[in-house]
Amino acid sequence: MTATITDVVVRDIRFPTSRQLDGSDAVHKAPDYSAAYVVLRTDDGPEGHGLSFTLGRGTELCVGAIRSLSHLVRGRTLDSIMADMRGFSRSLTNEEQLRWLGPEKGTIHMAGGALINAVWDLYAKRDGKPLWKLLANMTPAQLVACIDFHYIADALTPEQAIDILETAAPTRPNREAELRRSGIPTYTSSAGWLGYSDDKLRSLCKQYMQQGWSRFKMKVGVDVDDDVRRAAILREQIGPDGTLMVDANQAWDVPQAIGHMRHLAPFNPLWIEEPTCADDVLGHAAIAQAVAPIGVATGEVCHNRVMFKQFFQARAMSFCQIDACRLAGVNEVIAVLLMAAKFNIPVCPHAGGVGLANYVQHLAAFNYIAVAPSLENVVVEYTDHLHEHFVDPVVIKNGKYQLPTAPGYGITMKDESLCRFEFPTGKAWAAV
Amino acid sequence: MTATITDVVVRDIRFPTSRQLDGSDAVHKAPDYSAAYVVLRTDDGPEGHGLSFTLGRGTELCVGAIRSLSHLVRGRTLDSIMADMRGFSRSLTNEEQLRWLGPEKGTIHMAGGALINAVWDLYAKRDGKPLWKLLANMTPAQLVACIDFHYIADALTPEQAIDILETAAPTRPNREAELRRSGIPTYTSSAGWLGYSDDKLRSLCKQYMQQGWSRFKMKVGVDVDDDVRRAAILREQIGPDGTLMVDANQAWDVPQAIGHMRHLAPFNPLWIEEPTCADDVLGHAAIAQAVAPIGVATGEVCHNRVMFKQFFQARAMSFCQIDACRLAGVNEVIAVLLMAAKFNIPVCPHAGGVGLANYVQHLAAFNYIAVAPSLENVVVEYTDHLHEHFVDPVVIKNGKYQLPTAPGYGITMKDESLCRFEFPTGKAWAAV
Repeated sequence: MTATITDVVVRDIRFPTSRQLDGSDAVHKAPDYSAAYVVLRTDDGPEGHGLSFTLGRGTELCVGAIRSLSHLVRGRTLDSIMADMRGFSRSLTNEEQLRWLGPEKGTIHMAGGALINAVWDLYAKRDGKPLWKLLANMTPAQLVACIDFHYIADALTPEQAIDILETAAPTRPNREAELRRSGIPTYTSSAGWLGYSDDKLRSLCKQYMQQGWSRFKMKVGVDVDDDVRRAAILREQIGPDGTLMVDANQAWDVPQAIGHMRHLAPFNPLWIEEPTCADDVLGHAAIAQAVAPIGVATGEVCHNRVMFKQFFQARAMSFCQIDACRLAGVNEVIAVLLMAAKFNIPVCPHAGGVGLANYVQHLAAFNYIAVAPSLENVVVEYTDHLHEHFVDPVVIKNGKYQLPTAPGYGITMKDESLCRFEFPTGKAWAAV
Repeated sequence: MTATITDVVVRDIRFPTSRQLDGSDAVHKAPDYSAAYVVLRTDDGPEGHGLSFTLGRGTELCVGAIRSLSHLVRGRTLDSIMADMRGFSRSLTNEEQLRWLGPEKGTIHMAGGALINAVWDLYAKRDGKPLWKLLANMTPAQLVACIDFHYIADALTPEQAIDILETAAPTRPNREAELRRSGIPTYTSSAGWLGYSDDKLRSLCKQYMQQGWSRFKMKVGVDVDDDVRRAAILREQIGPDGTLMVDANQAWDVPQAIGHMRHLAPFNPLWIEEPTCADDVLGHAAIAQAVAPIGVATGEVCHNRVMFKQFFQARAMSFCQIDACRLAGVNEVIAVLLMAAKFNIPVCPHAGGVGLANYVQHLAAFNYIAVAPSLENVVVEYTDHLHEHFVDPVVIKNGKYQLPTAPGYGITMKDESLCRFEFPTGKAWAAV
């Protein structure tokens, strides 16, 4: 029996992370990690959950945008959606009047993503599988039927997408077994927030190394002398064999990025992340050429498949950091994963923020099992915040995500957390 | 005595244009031209007015976004804002938490633009000058002090901007006199909406030619045979000396655009507008190369100065169609005008929609008087809708905008129109 989506509930959930400067970087100095949180109620069986990740103020706008799109979801049966996933996703991303607010970018696109992801969560829960497994069980034709190829046909045709998926298909069982055995490799961003003191940086490095991490990312971008000092501390802590990444969160102009990376190159970073404006494909290409062999990583605010397409075409991105909430849900992510495979760019998803680790562990697992040419350089971000609010929190062993087992997309928050952190009515905000 | 902005009022104003298919194109088949309308109340003297142009549904989200930014404007004195216009505009475009919803794109960026434009309107009204004249009276240093050069320094430095403005400065009086004499050249989009019949297309062509127009734009992009038939009608009506532009409103993929333009090339269009996704710099560059000598025009949904920078750098844009509401107000528009001058690309502003003509006549006049290398190929869009709702409607003679004379940025709507078309409470929506 098919479920009908009877209601779309949206809530404004904010965590006051700015009080400890968790998540602080060169551009976002005091974020309150937050979520526009969606619940799809149905007439039968489980609910579907989804969210847009936000930084505090502005969550109300994502909540509003999800409500403005919700008439396209309310009243639909899950079967009718899954029978035409491409059409469903286009109905949200290209609603004829609402699209003007993007098109396919910003608040309205993130809102579409929250709804589309909630539908996938619902589908996976009803199917009794974690999302990665549900996707890994789909045929190449079924997966390709989810993708909107509009505007990317010059980089990836449906036929090429089928080819990539069919090439990987025979290796799916072995790759799945490997992930079950070893987990998904990660790096941690939790030691190197910009607002942390040198001492806190040192002690957190030690702590995470003891827990099994060997890859560390630190924030840079406000003052190059500070960046050099902190990079030296981090390199000293992790030794020559540890992996160091640096992340400027779009702080620099193109010439600045090239200049500052000369000072950081001696510490041998694997990548410079978001060296400049995330819209600047040509700027990233210039930086990539100038700073090689250091790679350029970007993607967490790369707003749609057309931007990713250009980053790949222009060789402007050495590491592809898809974001599960910025893009229009699982469907658009799959399009980007396939383009990354075609252009042979490793996918290292963004998982700072709240709930992003829950999401991207599924995407990373699916990518490795069914899409990616290899696991080389594939690492997923890990941060240590706010996991306690989820019904099925991520499981980390020896610095690796363990394959999730609970049905769904893993984003369901505890009722208690939803009530306590609802803005502005929850107890956590009562004193403010 | 300086004015303090005491309150920010925001209203949801929608015109039911979808009933006549005015404004219909390949992608937006039935828009209701609308505005998130801002009024800055002050403790002394006139109010400042501004708007975000929208297509109906979603106006509520722009209204919400303006409200979310309004605390950055409320309580400010006009003098303190004008003393640091660059800082003021950055405070709106890069608010640390809200920027995540863009950054610098989509709903939040448009909302910032509405507020920034309302401040310019207020300033011009208090100064007793139309905005174009106020800008044309500013020194190169004053103009450059308004611009956020972050992320564009690799294409335009403050020093280069000063040079461009100083080169044009001695010609300002002559150019202003020329515009006063002859008006600002336009083309009309009002004959060729996609939803109009062949007969309506023919009769509107005749009507506009009698009124002095020789440049006509038509919508294309749904069916290439229809496009060819309608282009033949239009070319037949306007004769070999008339100018024809075609506009696909992002309907095509890159290879499709190149293929379809082979069929339309025999009708000798000056440009193909928005052939594909507006984010696709590299795609536009490929199209521009393939369809030359037909030009590629784009810009109405080009979301910030960084995107324009790349279109210029990649030679992907032959005609620059800035939009007064998509960018973050006058400040960011000036940045784009200066880059266009540096790359020698004519600026032909977008003026479909409601209020856009009112805005861009000021921008086009300022551009010609103080920035642009020449008036060659500089034409401004004209459409025939909704002018009756403005206190100071645009004045057209012989197909040319006459320089506006009323103080301000020209966007103030009549009280009666605001009440009648307020959504959903106004009388125009009562029957719906």
